[in-house]
Amino acid sequence: MSDALAALRERLAETSDLHRAAAVLEWDQETHMPPGAAEARAHQIGTLRRFAHERFTAPEVADWLDALDGTFDDRPEEDGDRALVRVTRRDHARATRLPGAWVTAFAEATSRAREAWKAAREADDFAAFAPHLRRVVELNTEKAERLMPLVAEVHGPGYAPSPADARYDALLDEFEAGATTASVSAAFDQLRAGLVPLVAEVMARTPPDDAFLHGPFPEGAQWAFGLEVAGAFGYDLNCGRQDRSAHPFSTALAITDVRITTRLDPHFFPTAFFGTLHETGHALYEQGVSPALDRTPLADGASLGLHESQSRLWENLVGRNQAFWAHWMPRARAVFPDALGSVDAEVMYRAVNVVRPSLIRVEADELTYHLHVLLRFEIEHALLAGSLDVADVPEAWNEAMRRYLGVVPPTNADGCLQDIHWSLGALGYFPTYTLGTLMSVQLMEAARRDVPGLDDALAAGIYAPLLGWLREKVHRYGRSLATPEILRRATGQTLDAGPWLAYARAKYGEE
Amino acid sequence: MSDALAALRERLAETSDLHRAAAVLEWDQETHMPPGAAEARAHQIGTLRRFAHERFTAPEVADWLDALDGTFDDRPEEDGDRALVRVTRRDHARATRLPGAWVTAFAEATSRAREAWKAAREADDFAAFAPHLRRVVELNTEKAERLMPLVAEVHGPGYAPSPADARYDALLDEFEAGATTASVSAAFDQLRAGLVPLVAEVMARTPPDDAFLHGPFPEGAQWAFGLEVAGAFGYDLNCGRQDRSAHPFSTALAITDVRITTRLDPHFFPTAFFGTLHETGHALYEQGVSPALDRTPLADGASLGLHESQSRLWENLVGRNQAFWAHWMPRARAVFPDALGSVDAEVMYRAVNVVRPSLIRVEADELTYHLHVLLRFEIEHALLAGSLDVADVPEAWNEAMRRYLGVVPPTNADGCLQDIHWSLGALGYFPTYTLGTLMSVQLMEAARRDVPGLDDALAAGIYAPLLGWLREKVHRYGRSLATPEILRRATGQTLDAGPWLAYARAKYGEE
Repeated sequence: MSDALAALRERLAETSDLHRAAAVLEWDQETHMPPGAAEARAHQIGTLRRFAHERFTAPEVADWLDALDGTFDDRPEEDGDRALVRVTRRDHARATRLPGAWVTAFAEATSRAREAWKAAREADDFAAFAPHLRRVVELNTEKAERLMPLVAEVHGPGYAPSPADARYDALLDEFEAGATTASVSAAFDQLRAGLVPLVAEVMARTPPDDAFLHGPFPEGAQWAFGLEVAGAFGYDLNCGRQDRSAHPFSTALAITDVRITTRLDPHFFPTAFFGTLHETGHALYEQGVSPALDRTPLADGASLGLHESQSRLWENLVGRNQAFWAHWMPRARAVFPDALGSVDAEVMYRAVNVVRPSLIRVEADELTYHLHVLLRFEIEHALLAGSLDVADVPEAWNEAMRRYLGVVPPTNADGCLQDIHWSLGALGYFPTYTLGTLMSVQLMEAARRDVPGLDDALAAGIYAPLLGWLREKVHRYGRSLATPEILRRATGQTLDAGPWLAYARAKYGEE
Repeated sequence: MSDALAALRERLAETSDLHRAAAVLEWDQETHMPPGAAEARAHQIGTLRRFAHERFTAPEVADWLDALDGTFDDRPEEDGDRALVRVTRRDHARATRLPGAWVTAFAEATSRAREAWKAAREADDFAAFAPHLRRVVELNTEKAERLMPLVAEVHGPGYAPSPADARYDALLDEFEAGATTASVSAAFDQLRAGLVPLVAEVMARTPPDDAFLHGPFPEGAQWAFGLEVAGAFGYDLNCGRQDRSAHPFSTALAITDVRITTRLDPHFFPTAFFGTLHETGHALYEQGVSPALDRTPLADGASLGLHESQSRLWENLVGRNQAFWAHWMPRARAVFPDALGSVDAEVMYRAVNVVRPSLIRVEADELTYHLHVLLRFEIEHALLAGSLDVADVPEAWNEAMRRYLGVVPPTNADGCLQDIHWSLGALGYFPTYTLGTLMSVQLMEAARRDVPGLDDALAAGIYAPLLGWLREKVHRYGRSLATPEILRRATGQTLDAGPWLAYARAKYGEE
């Protein structure tokens, strides 16, 4: 048994090293790599990922897992050995259920889809992308059918979804382990019921002035100010760094090497600033994973939703908060005297919280953002259920935009072609953005209950008490506990849209 | 046969990807990586190098090589298939003598040694680096003992070195195949005989004024000017880039991704400028390797000596040339008006060629440089022979400095801690610097004979004819031909210190 555990740990350390190395190459590709290197880099990353897959799915790994089955069941659920075996069994089962032919077909189809999507978006030509999306749906359907038995096993005997929900569950499971279409739908129904009237109410008011956010904001000052606030939050630059990239992201190259990127727009302050706070939230999570989990599959976020709860918490609940700007505005005025010299904290707070219907998800405000997610969830579910044909996606999209936001994209490029996700083959990913947001408020309320004087500390620009609570309740576990269990232990609750709705009403409702 | 070749090529492409990926991680470690990541990065690089080693030394590779033995012997020596089999057989023989445990231990030890060296150099604390150097010597001794029989086989029946020389030969062979301690000593003796009196002669003269080289030179302007000249030489930034690091280096992450680094000293112009020209010379070599050799072991320099011949050629024979400064001085005056506004080309030429005893090898002039190499050669040889203990390196270093250069470093940071090489695990490397310098003059003289009007072109700042000749005669082959054969074809000569001594006498001798 201890031999099997040692062998398994050694193998997992190797595959972790290979995946982390691939992540270094991907980080470099997005930040510093000269353009001529693209073809060579694709080979290098492909080789690393393939080795990691081969080493992980090798027959001896199944033997070690069988030998360890049940061995640690008398220990606490979050015990390092028990969690390692549980999570690895699950990852291994997923990885071995998809045959090589499917993996190859998926890689080829999504590689073509990505190119086709770029061109189609550029040319506003949905018809050119449609056959690729159709293929992505087909391959995801096959994937779902193959993974369904596994997911059913995880959810246990009470699990009885509709055939369409079962498919979506099988895909969702990869991104948000423990969630089901039913639980997501329930939360989204509750959210929709409260959010749609709230948005209508806010829309009826005259929006505050936010013209001054268009600056100009000198790039160097933006860079330094973003990092200053990230550092105040607790982002450790001894184990991290910030670079520029076309699209902001965070990436963990080790627990001790968690990097963020941002993009700078001299003519719009929120682009870089809230991008930095958002990615800092992700990075704080990865930096807070217990060092004991390093070089294991447990050294990662528990789910995409929980990861997003951390980015949204720091970006929105901290960074778009009234007390935040009361504290930081003097500094912001000093750093950006031309653009913000005569802007007071309350005006800034209102400007960075303007709600208005927009076409593009990644540019949406805190409220309307979720309407963008809702419509994507509906369309994905219908595509997998077979109740929506790929050819009808633009119409379904535009109808939902009209229904939810009262605006219709003038082009598909600003509509159903705007996101990269489907071209990457990712169906079942979008809901995690909203799930994370809902959890962020549940977690923040729990922190408020647990930590005396938390709001006073935040108002004083002291973030260690909040970060300490998140480290203790969320970060340190990595994947040692599943998201629902982390949420239950931290908040005493299951996933619930109520707290977020209460937060949104208090912040944006009738004054 | 063709099956064996296809299988071999596929395997070599994989191992090439793994080594190149490790090189990306090493580049990152020296340029951008946050310090806290050192331990994790050591694991990652160790795993990549070990996989590459395992995949390369797997039994089937020996089978493929056996199946291909002699198959291409009717083709020219530089034929891609023939060269691939020849070079791979040799690499394979070396690699199979080193067990995976050694490779992993070496990779991890040197990754840690590199971090320790940086800190020790910063703190001028040799004791902090000593245990790492001791480990490097141990691992190199083990390596030498394992490789000695192979190297003896290559050198044939007349080969009868002392035990200490045999060890050093086994290490030298990796960097400069075909060279021996005896042949290096002979070349160094010939060099010393001509060089020592020449240095004495130059020292007896009053040195020209070079105070203006201490600037100040604004860092941004230095960065841009270095890259401007590198670009004029032909360095392709679409397939390369420059970053800062503690010690300048160049690294090929692909034929299409060859990067250089430099360090900037606002108070001494030559540090960055000639560093950039030097690394550019290395990079031009790697960028000039035939694309057909990509993802094979042939996509590399033929030896370190030949590599150094390229860096020295561009740094010294081009960059420290009278005609070079006649052409570039107007531009340099425009870029650095404060420091160089009233300096003419001849004064600049003399200043960048001042000969004086100095502490730092990489900042040494063309003449005394080789005395720095001599002392390193002696110390390395003694460490491997066991006649010098690691603890006594500072004393041995300082004694040799006094003997060769008449100066003693006031700190170890400016003495035995100045070079990165030992922290990389490289013993037997330093002599290649001098061997390359000797070859650089042999190659330049041949280019002058072959290319009509070469000096006129260089005087006009037109470098394409020289680069074209080097591409044709040296670069494109990669490792498809061995260094002595490349030198013979390009120059009609074997290695010879005579041309360099003649060049040095003409440039620095009594006027």
